[in-house]
Amino acid sequence: MRLVTFEIPGIMGSLTRVGALESNNRIVDLAAAHRLMLLDSGVSKSAADRISSALIPMDLLLFIEGGRFILEEARKALDWVRGDRIPDRELCTFATDTVTLRSPIPRPPLLRDFMAFEEHLQNIYPKLGRSIPPEWYNLPVYYKGNPGSTGGHGDDIRIPSYEQELDYEFELAFVIGKGGSNIDPKDALEHVYGFMIYNDFSARSMQEREMSVGLGPAKGKDFNRGHVLGPCLVTADEIPDIYNLTMVASINGKECCRTNTNTIHWKFEDMIAHASRDEYLYPGEVFGSGTVGNGSGKESGRMLQAGDVIELSIEGLGTLRNQVIANRQTMEG
Amino acid sequence: MRLVTFEIPGIMGSLTRVGALESNNRIVDLAAAHRLMLLDSGVSKSAADRISSALIPMDLLLFIEGGRFILEEARKALDWVRGDRIPDRELCTFATDTVTLRSPIPRPPLLRDFMAFEEHLQNIYPKLGRSIPPEWYNLPVYYKGNPGSTGGHGDDIRIPSYEQELDYEFELAFVIGKGGSNIDPKDALEHVYGFMIYNDFSARSMQEREMSVGLGPAKGKDFNRGHVLGPCLVTADEIPDIYNLTMVASINGKECCRTNTNTIHWKFEDMIAHASRDEYLYPGEVFGSGTVGNGSGKESGRMLQAGDVIELSIEGLGTLRNQVIANRQTMEG
Repeated sequence: MRLVTFEIPGIMGSLTRVGALESNNRIVDLAAAHRLMLLDSGVSKSAADRISSALIPMDLLLFIEGGRFILEEARKALDWVRGDRIPDRELCTFATDTVTLRSPIPRPPLLRDFMAFEEHLQNIYPKLGRSIPPEWYNLPVYYKGNPGSTGGHGDDIRIPSYEQELDYEFELAFVIGKGGSNIDPKDALEHVYGFMIYNDFSARSMQEREMSVGLGPAKGKDFNRGHVLGPCLVTADEIPDIYNLTMVASINGKECCRTNTNTIHWKFEDMIAHASRDEYLYPGEVFGSGTVGNGSGKESGRMLQAGDVIELSIEGLGTLRNQVIANRQTMEG
Repeated sequence: MRLVTFEIPGIMGSLTRVGALESNNRIVDLAAAHRLMLLDSGVSKSAADRISSALIPMDLLLFIEGGRFILEEARKALDWVRGDRIPDRELCTFATDTVTLRSPIPRPPLLRDFMAFEEHLQNIYPKLGRSIPPEWYNLPVYYKGNPGSTGGHGDDIRIPSYEQELDYEFELAFVIGKGGSNIDPKDALEHVYGFMIYNDFSARSMQEREMSVGLGPAKGKDFNRGHVLGPCLVTADEIPDIYNLTMVASINGKECCRTNTNTIHWKFEDMIAHASRDEYLYPGEVFGSGTVGNGSGKESGRMLQAGDVIELSIEGLGTLRNQVIANRQTMEG
């Protein structure tokens, strides 16, 4: 299933809903579909309201916490909508261009971002006058992004007021389903709920200044909508081999990166095993792969400018598109 | 008010409650007190149940999101309990030694930890053969801890299985009350809900290896109960001058650090202004000061051992006590 979080207008402010993205560019609202399915089967209105609200939460994080139990209920509802005999299908579906997509998980409990692609380091470190740190080959290191500063497909990304050099980072992300600690690498993929594209927008000058102190990036990564995830969360069952997917990035329609997830050095199993040592991983946590080789302007020499449209595509996961807009100072000046 | 999060046994598993720590070593359960106050005033039982549940949430994060509105309701209830005419006060109070204290906010939305005390850097960097990085004087840098790996007062802290050198870090933390972005330093303290003591336990060998790669600490800081906060969250109105509080640390009853918050270089106003640039701060986010001068074993040369009891006291904020226990391998071996 291709899960999305989307917003529609409501009488008490915008409503956040959980849906399934269908191939016809329509989104099925899963709670609404589940309720109609129950009504259709003869369940009373009040019981259908209560049961569907409990089984299909409006928050994808709660949905994921419900594990297979909730996913199977959502599948039943989706199959019911896909069937031919439904007169009121339009009551629970939306055209994608009529709603606002958000990050599939708007506020994950945690956002770890690793550095799994050796080619990216081979491209970056010589520019810094350094070789790849030896410990990189021993440990899957990561920094943590602000999970409160996510963005979604279609969001405009504002250049931070303190930055001249806004960059993108083309990454693959996965989401923890079943929680756990001290997870064995051979069991690790059982803890993966699904996959998303991740654009880790980066304020390069700030990042460089911060990293000179040693605590890693902070405001170099964390600003409103700086961590863009989406367009959807594709459940793991739909991706036969996560380590063999074509990845393509383009700026303003011009391709700037073409590679494959098979270039990864640190596998997701390694990340999960390492992160879960003596520490509990919660459902809904997001792990980023780190930038794929040539998946940043830092490598190509081209930073983003206001007006640029950046598109990241991964086979089976869709295309994540955002436009860069000028910072407030420039706009007001 | 000295707010605590505590657990009591319940028929559906342990119940998490929000309380006020009183000077007689008793905790007033604020929702229960509020309900009794309403009943005492003649409100019907069903209305009192509904109103008190909504006004005094069981989760301190939701409590904080309710701002002054909720805090004033809680104060009314606390004043009522403190009054003399209450026959059933025991129905809503607990002796502190009969409950389990948790981190006041068990899972904050974000945990930023700064490096605000120059003396700590003056002690540390020469040991690393470096001088203090110049950018430290220009930017209040921070790393982000895992807000899912918090501990509370009284928790045993297990030495991680991958570490030989467990250390403590003596810090002062504050909590964001009113959210906001692009906050002016002169308005910043209005966004502070209250203060806590913070022991940022650190796995030093792992931290050193990770930091050599450049992304900052990860598993060096993040392991179960690695970020200990408490014992209570003292609301800002109770601390007349946060920049003049005595800080004392001891190990096994022997004092190992005595200093004052007035040694801070980067003030909380600077941290809030910097972090909120182009980024929204949410209620309940925790900011750590970073280690005070001489507030770590890294500086004194004494790492923690299994059995050690570490106590951190800050004037007006109480004492945060934890015992270190052996790692699982050692115990099973």
